[in-house]
Amino acid sequence: MTPAELSLQAQAKSSYLCVGLDTDLRRIPQVLQSEKNPALAFNKAIIEATQEYAIAYKPNLAFYEAMGPTGWEIFAETLELIPDDIMVIADAKRGDIGNTAHLYARAFFETYQTDALTVAPYMGRDSVEPFLSYADKWVFLLGLTSNPGARDFQYYPDPEQPLYEQVFRKSQQWSKGQPGNLGFVVGATRPEVLADVRKWAPAAWLLVPGVGAQGGDLDAVLRQGKNDAGGLLINSSRGIIYASDGVDFAEKAHEAAKGLQARMKAYV
Amino acid sequence: MTPAELSLQAQAKSSYLCVGLDTDLRRIPQVLQSEKNPALAFNKAIIEATQEYAIAYKPNLAFYEAMGPTGWEIFAETLELIPDDIMVIADAKRGDIGNTAHLYARAFFETYQTDALTVAPYMGRDSVEPFLSYADKWVFLLGLTSNPGARDFQYYPDPEQPLYEQVFRKSQQWSKGQPGNLGFVVGATRPEVLADVRKWAPAAWLLVPGVGAQGGDLDAVLRQGKNDAGGLLINSSRGIIYASDGVDFAEKAHEAAKGLQARMKAYV
Repeated sequence: MTPAELSLQAQAKSSYLCVGLDTDLRRIPQVLQSEKNPALAFNKAIIEATQEYAIAYKPNLAFYEAMGPTGWEIFAETLELIPDDIMVIADAKRGDIGNTAHLYARAFFETYQTDALTVAPYMGRDSVEPFLSYADKWVFLLGLTSNPGARDFQYYPDPEQPLYEQVFRKSQQWSKGQPGNLGFVVGATRPEVLADVRKWAPAAWLLVPGVGAQGGDLDAVLRQGKNDAGGLLINSSRGIIYASDGVDFAEKAHEAAKGLQARMKAYV
Repeated sequence: MTPAELSLQAQAKSSYLCVGLDTDLRRIPQVLQSEKNPALAFNKAIIEATQEYAIAYKPNLAFYEAMGPTGWEIFAETLELIPDDIMVIADAKRGDIGNTAHLYARAFFETYQTDALTVAPYMGRDSVEPFLSYADKWVFLLGLTSNPGARDFQYYPDPEQPLYEQVFRKSQQWSKGQPGNLGFVVGATRPEVLADVRKWAPAAWLLVPGVGAQGGDLDAVLRQGKNDAGGLLINSSRGIIYASDGVDFAEKAHEAAKGLQARMKAYV
């Protein structure tokens, strides 16, 4: 998927919504428990209920890994259910030395054929570049994350010259020949940082988790984070997919997605 | 596995050897290509050929993920082949917010039942603690890695107060009630750092990759890294498992493992 195609989706749907598929076997509604494959049935219903508003889906690989090898079958089958013009971001936060990074790239971009992968920056350039060498595939590099632990190292050594700034600045030099495909994860719980991020990486697409359960401010994110091409993928996982655990779970997911899109559309 | 049990293995085998199972379908010897499951047959032969000297095995998950869902079956079946008294370290470098980290812990410590997992520190405390809450399960947190990209962020902002030092120091506060089960990854290409690491984390077990293809100095690692309990897991992957691509691959793997153990035993 190209940056232009992603912009087009955002405009067509007046939305920056990314739906996180954090599919937990323990939270699948009772009504689906008699299905042959409850997790896949759940994902199918969620995708059908939200694709009118979603410009990306983000399966969180931890949830699939926890199911054992079957979980990876469900992951692969879920990808088949997502319309081709909607971005698929494998949220796996991989990061390893060069020769291993090549294998992770082969896994996600060739074996499973996702459009994008989240990647952790700690190991530096040779752990990220193998992913960037794929045309029309995307990396979302962890910049500033939404969790409490972000304070431990991402602000090191002090808030005046934090590590996360270094991650944004340094990685700008890595995207050889594919300027569009290096994006960043920036937590919605830190909207004040988005103005800085737009100085360091004006053209990058930002994957923004944390507007739901984690309490981020959606309007602040939209105001601070948007660029001319759109540049935002605002993720909601639990707030949509577990909006209800009853027979109306898909309907409530639809409403939750619609509600978020309604708040986004003025900014698109 | 407890620290005492790991020490006992090291003493019984006079070895700190960890064998990395970076099993690449493209590098499996011709002689195994007619097997029903060449990757599993390869792992079986390598484990049988090296278990006399190995105190740990470290499957690198990238290689299994790249095979698709089948790769995870092979990973699970490989674990069955490893003797119970030898540590299994899933080299997966996971790292995500608390509720997702719980799922990764469930995946590796419950679904697959490995003894240990490598974890990336970027997201801080709540991304690591869910793993530490398992009794007798281990985390190897990335400290200072062996690859060129380590220079990008791990030395930030300068070599006098590098990020990696902060990772060692801060994480010492996280291991509540399970002091033995927080280890670190320290690349063999930086033996000069091991003396510092022993000041910051005197009791920790260190997983040390990079003595083979990456050119680390084994004797310097042994001199600088050892502690009273042993405290070292020195990994070799390609140097052992791909010592030969001929019919003698297992024999050569045995010899390579034996050769490394011979250099280690004086230090045990």
